[in-house]
Amino acid sequence: MPLYTVTTQAGVLGGEVKAKFAGALTKLHSEYAGVPGNWVHIVFQDYPPGSGFTAGKASATAALTLLIRSGRSADYKRGLLKRLWALFQDATGAPDDEIVIGIQEVPASQAMEMAQIMPDISDQ
Amino acid sequence: MPLYTVTTQAGVLGGEVKAKFAGALTKLHSEYAGVPGNWVHIVFQDYPPGSGFTAGKASATAALTLLIRSGRSADYKRGLLKRLWALFQDATGAPDDEIVIGIQEVPASQAMEMAQIMPDISDQ
Amino acid sequence: MPLYTVTTQAGVLGGEVKAKFAGALTKLHSEYAGVPGNWVHIVFQDYPPGSGFTAGKASATAALTLLIRSGRSADYKRGLLKRLWALFQDATGAPDDEIVIGIQEVPASQAMEMAQIMPDISDQ
Repeated sequence: MPLYTVTTQAGVLGGEVKAKFAGALTKLHSEYAGVPGNWVHIVFQDYPPGSGFTAGKASATAALTLLIRSGRSADYKRGLLKRLWALFQDATGAPDDEIVIGIQEVPASQAMEMAQIMPDISDQ
Repeated sequence: MPLYTVTTQAGVLGGEVKAKFAGALTKLHSEYAGVPGNWVHIVFQDYPPGSGFTAGKASATAALTLLIRSGRSADYKRGLLKRLWALFQDATGAPDDEIVIGIQEVPASQAMEMAQIMPDISDQ
Repeated sequence: MPLYTVTTQAGVLGGEVKAKFAGALTKLHSEYAGVPGNWVHIVFQDYPPGSGFTAGKASATAALTLLIRSGRSADYKRGLLKRLWALFQDATGAPDDEIVIGIQEVPASQAMEMAQIMPDISDQ
């Protein structure tokens, strides 16, 4: 953890942009959260035109969701959201009304990585 | 928010059906929740035959998940589920045992849209 | 519920492996949770090479997330994670640092299946 899922219309993020964005996201998250870079997993899920909608109309809706361990402060999460927004909008070029970002949480005991149940935030 | 993710086997929902279903979903959610239509984001994620399973057998499993801000009553969510079920079954034609719907929640402070951290339910 | 989403790089899990893994997952979950096999839904979402990243580098990151009703004990979930890890690593052949598993929960009242709002864990 984190596990980032980046959902955009096919063609919005080309191969080089994905690689660059993934690098920037990994650096941001690793530094901001104080966790090793190899904890950061990112998957891009493209959808074809006609499969994204905002306000009931076909649009290149850009959604970024991330799954983290619970235990971080509200301030931590607000600060992360704002930084992610800037990076994501820069990568996609999407207007404000086509971007949505959500931080989902699971208790550390409900996540497994490196063949280990994840440690609590306070224990690491 | 909401962010709807509609996962069906490729071919189940054609382009016109997606557009019609997205329109109906947006209208339902906007009216039911009392939020502007442009808060409603929908992404369809198709998977190829042989990638969906129910009861361990390949099937055209139809999953609809939505991510909303926490703070709504249990009654609100039960009412929404029933309305979504009717719309989703009508669009997919799937039998009862191949449909699953789940409402996931995040605190408003963990979601960002329109370049703003989302307001709490009670504040809007 | 559960709803399993298995996200791997295209080519990692072929059709036969998906079917075998889905069967094993369904059997495991059904026995471990004491629920009927037809409650178990699984969707595989493949992504093309260059769309998965670990530590900021392109990699065949393998993510398994499952959505269950809340109400299970921490021990239950830890035991499930370990069993899932073994099955998932066996199916994908992925090294420890490219696998991530997370258990997400929703209250039973926020999920609908078989045309019914789900019963609480203690009621079934």
